[in-house]
Amino acid sequence: MVSAPSGTGKTTLCTNVRQTPDLVYSVSCTTRPQRPGEQDGVDYFFLSKSEFEKKMQRGEMLEHADVYGHYYGTPKGPVLEHLAAGRDVLLDIDVQGARQIRGSRDAKIQEALADIFIMPPDLEELRRRLQGRGTENAQQIAKRIQAADAEMADWKSYRYTILSSSMEEDLIKFRAIIRAERYLSRRLNLHHG
Amino acid sequence: MVSAPSGTGKTTLCTNVRQTPDLVYSVSCTTRPQRPGEQDGVDYFFLSKSEFEKKMQRGEMLEHADVYGHYYGTPKGPVLEHLAAGRDVLLDIDVQGARQIRGSRDAKIQEALADIFIMPPDLEELRRRLQGRGTENAQQIAKRIQAADAEMADWKSYRYTILSSSMEEDLIKFRAIIRAERYLSRRLNLHHG
Repeated sequence: MVSAPSGTGKTTLCTNVRQTPDLVYSVSCTTRPQRPGEQDGVDYFFLSKSEFEKKMQRGEMLEHADVYGHYYGTPKGPVLEHLAAGRDVLLDIDVQGARQIRGSRDAKIQEALADIFIMPPDLEELRRRLQGRGTENAQQIAKRIQAADAEMADWKSYRYTILSSSMEEDLIKFRAIIRAERYLSRRLNLHHG
Repeated sequence: MVSAPSGTGKTTLCTNVRQTPDLVYSVSCTTRPQRPGEQDGVDYFFLSKSEFEKKMQRGEMLEHADVYGHYYGTPKGPVLEHLAAGRDVLLDIDVQGARQIRGSRDAKIQEALADIFIMPPDLEELRRRLQGRGTENAQQIAKRIQAADAEMADWKSYRYTILSSSMEEDLIKFRAIIRAERYLSRRLNLHHG
């Protein structure tokens, strides 16, 4: 799983990482309205509030959160199916969701888990990036900066931390981590010894 | 540190890895005679038996072994100096040496440590590679195969295991591991949080 405060380019990074062979992107569920250009089952699974709550009650969510009045969550079934088929799954998740998943009692999830935090260079640079993006007003940017500051305190809970520089550099580092994790002896099942 | 039975191409791999920036190759000490073309301080530090024993007694060897009547060992000083200067050090070492280093009480060594085992595809392929190399007779090859078989049992003691395929593939995997290890949160010293 990968976490990063807004403005660290995590979404672009994950979009690029999605090209990596044998890596499947976990599609989240949400109750927020579908936006123009978004595809159900690709960008999100768009659920009604009652559908989402039913899934939660059945324990079918690895993690979930209420963000500004909308539910977001990671459905457990597809993740377990991909892992069983030997595919790595990429979760793009906030620090609260990451905490929930780290606390999961599912052994398959625990075995598979590796977490990466993308650290923005500093809050000033983050502010510049958010302003440059031009999609939020000053108040929204201030709110995101505050949230980012709080999230950044969690970096030590992640096995890896990438200090964000250019998208190209971040991507090289990200891919190196994904590759290296596959060669951990504890993940291998060899017959010798 | 990297360990591999003979014939897995570890020496060629390490020679290629030596080109990696910020990675320094640890030059071993030995009491075996210098061969034509070998440079003192580059291929090995060539020491007399008494010089080597003095270093051992002073605790200046991270590990040492007596191989076919000659001492081989890793001098501690250069490794600690490189680590203090923020450089990663590559140790090309056998499984017995690796065990000694894992048992080191030096906290700087323990913190820095990451170990990789290069696993030959199988003993038959290893035999073909050794025969193809043409530098050993049948008896020497049999001895190396036997040693390799014993060494291969140790792979689980290493954090990473690379199943040797082509030199190019092995090198890509090796470099990914070295990169990824640098992004471990526990190795980073950030001010936030």
